[in-house]
Amino acid sequence: MTLDDVLARRRVVMPGMRLAYREPLRIVSGEGVWLTDAGGDRYLDAYNNVAHVGHGRPEVVEAIARQAAVLNTNTRYLVDGVVAYAERIARLLPDPLEVVWFANSGSEANDLAWRIARTVTEREGMIVTRNAYHGSTHLTMATSPEELGHDRLPPWVATIGPPVAGSEPGVEAAVARLAAAGHLPAALACDTVFSSDGIFEPPAGWLAAAAGEVRTAGGLFVADEVQAGFGRVGPRLWGFAGHGVVPDIVTLGKPMGNGHPLAAVVTTRRIADAFRADGYYFSTFAGNPVAAAAGMAVLDVMEGDGLPARASRVGALLHRELAGRHPSIREVRGPGSFVGVDLGTGRLAQEVMEGMRARRVLVGRTGGGGEVLKIRPPLVFGEEHAGLLLAAFDGALGDQTSGSGSSSSV
Amino acid sequence: MTLDDVLARRRVVMPGMRLAYREPLRIVSGEGVWLTDAGGDRYLDAYNNVAHVGHGRPEVVEAIARQAAVLNTNTRYLVDGVVAYAERIARLLPDPLEVVWFANSGSEANDLAWRIARTVTEREGMIVTRNAYHGSTHLTMATSPEELGHDRLPPWVATIGPPVAGSEPGVEAAVARLAAAGHLPAALACDTVFSSDGIFEPPAGWLAAAAGEVRTAGGLFVADEVQAGFGRVGPRLWGFAGHGVVPDIVTLGKPMGNGHPLAAVVTTRRIADAFRADGYYFSTFAGNPVAAAAGMAVLDVMEGDGLPARASRVGALLHRELAGRHPSIREVRGPGSFVGVDLGTGRLAQEVMEGMRARRVLVGRTGGGGEVLKIRPPLVFGEEHAGLLLAAFDGALGDQTSGSGSSSSV
Repeated sequence: MTLDDVLARRRVVMPGMRLAYREPLRIVSGEGVWLTDAGGDRYLDAYNNVAHVGHGRPEVVEAIARQAAVLNTNTRYLVDGVVAYAERIARLLPDPLEVVWFANSGSEANDLAWRIARTVTEREGMIVTRNAYHGSTHLTMATSPEELGHDRLPPWVATIGPPVAGSEPGVEAAVARLAAAGHLPAALACDTVFSSDGIFEPPAGWLAAAAGEVRTAGGLFVADEVQAGFGRVGPRLWGFAGHGVVPDIVTLGKPMGNGHPLAAVVTTRRIADAFRADGYYFSTFAGNPVAAAAGMAVLDVMEGDGLPARASRVGALLHRELAGRHPSIREVRGPGSFVGVDLGTGRLAQEVMEGMRARRVLVGRTGGGGEVLKIRPPLVFGEEHAGLLLAAFDGALGDQTSGSGSSSSV
Repeated sequence: MTLDDVLARRRVVMPGMRLAYREPLRIVSGEGVWLTDAGGDRYLDAYNNVAHVGHGRPEVVEAIARQAAVLNTNTRYLVDGVVAYAERIARLLPDPLEVVWFANSGSEANDLAWRIARTVTEREGMIVTRNAYHGSTHLTMATSPEELGHDRLPPWVATIGPPVAGSEPGVEAAVARLAAAGHLPAALACDTVFSSDGIFEPPAGWLAAAAGEVRTAGGLFVADEVQAGFGRVGPRLWGFAGHGVVPDIVTLGKPMGNGHPLAAVVTTRRIADAFRADGYYFSTFAGNPVAAAAGMAVLDVMEGDGLPARASRVGALLHRELAGRHPSIREVRGPGSFVGVDLGTGRLAQEVMEGMRARRVLVGRTGGGGEVLKIRPPLVFGEEHAGLLLAAFDGALGDQTSGSGSSSSV
C-alpha cells in the first residue's frame, strides 16, 4: 500500500483533522525517542510529549498487558490499584489538593473542571488566555480561542494575556468585561506554561497575582497542567510549582499514561463536597484498573530514571545552544524541556519545521501566528539527541536564510 | 487491607460516584463471565456489557499488549491499522454512513455528535427521551434528564416518550415546545434500545416515524448505540437495524474495545464535509493504534464466536423463562441480551438486585423509578449461566415476596 493509498483510504477517518507535515508521516513503530516510518526511516521525536517515558516503554507496556489480563472494570466496584494510584497522584500535589476524579482525556478533564467551577460558584463566566486551547468538547471548545476564533467566543468568556514579561495579568479588566456582558467569573483557567499562546513561562508573581485577582472576584483558579505537568518543567513536577500559588483545581492529561487514555481532575475536599452535592459525574472507562496500572508505571519510571531532573538538564542545554544561535531567533522561551523558539513569522517556523522533518527530526509549532517552534520531546530525550536536533535545526534554518529557500534538501 | 480500609481510602477517588450495592464489591480479577472479589468469591456477571467478549479475553489482551509494544501515537500521523479499523467499522454500518471520528468515551462521542448536528444545522435545539442519559460532559449532561433532573433541563432541550407500545413518538409536539422557547431542533438523539427509560425496544415503526418527524422539522436523527450496539440485540448488530431507518449520525462506545477506552461517531460524507467546514475536533488519544487494535480484536472474536447469534439465543431463553415466572413481574422487555424485568417498584428491584448479589449474581436496575432489573451480560454469557441467574433471581424474589423480607440470606 502506497502513501497515496493510505491517504485516499483515510478519507473515512477523522475528516478535517490536520495531519502533521505537507508530506504526512506513515508511522509503523516507536521506541524511546525514535519513530520509524513505513519506508524504514527513523525520526527523532522532539515533539510528542505523550510518550513521556519513551515510545513503547517496556515497563508501561508490561503493566498494561498484565492488568488487562487480570481485570479491567469500572469505578462502581472497588479496585485497590485504582485507589492506590489516586492516592499517589494526590500525594504529588500540595495540600489541600487531595481529591481525584479520573477522566479519559484532557478534554474530558477540563470539561469536568469547568463544570465543577461553575457548579460550586453558581456562575458561568470563564477567563482564559488569548490564544488558549483547552479541549474539543462543546464546553472546552467554547474556551479555546486558538481553534474557535475570537469572534465566536460566547459572551461568558473573557480573555487575558499573553503573559509576557512585565505584563499584568489583567484579570480585573476581564472580570469587568464579563460583568458588562452580564456574567460573573466562575474561574480563571490557564495553562501553567502558556503553550498555544507561544510557550511562555509565567513571569515571577504572575500566576499568584492572577489567582488572587480571580479569587477576589469570587472565582476559582484552575491550572491546566495537561501539557506542563509530570516533570516536563523539571526539576519541578508542575508548571505552577514555585510560583507561590496552589490552584483550586488542577487538570492532568497527555503524558499521564504514556499514551494510554488517562486524565484527571484534582481539587480540594471542600470543592469536591460542594460539587457532589449538586453535580453528577460518572464515566464508564475513567479510572479503570488498566489505566491506573499504566499511570503507576509511568510514575515509577519517571522516579526511577530521574526524568524531571533530566528534563531540566537537557532543556537547559537546548536553551543555551539555541539562544542567539541565529539572527532569525527572536527569543528562546519556556521552562525545562518545554522549549519555544520564536522565529518571528509563521512562514519561517513552518519551513524550518518541514526542513527538520526532511532531516528526520520532529518538532511542532505554536503561538498566535504559528511563529514559535515547539520542542517538547519525550522526557527520555538526552544530550546526544539534543545534538542531532540542533544540527537539523541549523540545516533547516540555513536553507531558509541562505537565499535558496528550499526546504526539501537533506 | 479490609473493605473498610479501602472504603476510607476511596474518599480521595471520584467522590459522589455511587458504588454498586450496599456492601460494595472489591474486585480483583475477571475471566469470561466471572468476576472474583478479594475474598476469593466468584460472581456471575450478568450486568457489565463493556466486557463484551468476556473479561480478560485473551485475544483482546494480546492485541493490546502487542500494539502497545510496537506503537502508540496520535492521528496527526498515518497509521495503517487505524485506517483499516475505521474502514471496518464503516462497513458494518449501512450506506451512506461512511465517515468515522474516534473518541475516548461514549460521553465524548455524544458530545461530538451533538456538536456536529448543531454546527451543520446551525441550530441549538435537542430532543431526547424522557429519562435519557447520554453522557457526563457539560453538553451531554444537559441532555440527560436521568441524572440532571427535568427541572434543570435548559430551554433548548425537549423530551419525548417513553416509547411504550402503541405510543406516537411525539417529536412534532417536542418541536413545538422548542419553538415556544425560541429554538429550532438540531437533532433528535435517542438510544435505539431505550435503556435508562426502562429498557424498551422501540415499537415497530417508531424509530422511522420519529426520524421522519425530526427531519421534516429540519433536524438530524442521531442514534445512540453506545449500549445497544455491536450485537447485543443479536442477531442484528445495531439497535436501529430492522427498524426501517438509517440514522444521520450513529454513536458507538462501551463494548467497542472490551473496556479499553474507545468510542466513535459515524456519519455521512455530506454531514462530515459540512461539519469540517466550520467545526474543529481533535483528540490526542482518540484513534490511537492500541485502541484500534483492541477494537479490531473485539470484532474478530465477535465474528469468530458468532456472539450476536448467541446474544439472540440466550436472550430469548431469558425472556421465555422470566415472562410470567412470578406475579411480581409486570413485564419482560428488550431485544437480544438486553433484558429488562419490570418489577413495578424501585424498592423491590433494589432488594432483588441485592439478593442476587448475595447469591453472587450481578445485575443492575434502571427506569424512571429504578423499577426495572437490567440484565445486560457480556455476550459470552451462555445457557448454563442463564440457569444460574434464574436460580438466584428466584431466591432473591422469593425472599422479598415470601414475607421474610430479608435480602442477605444465601
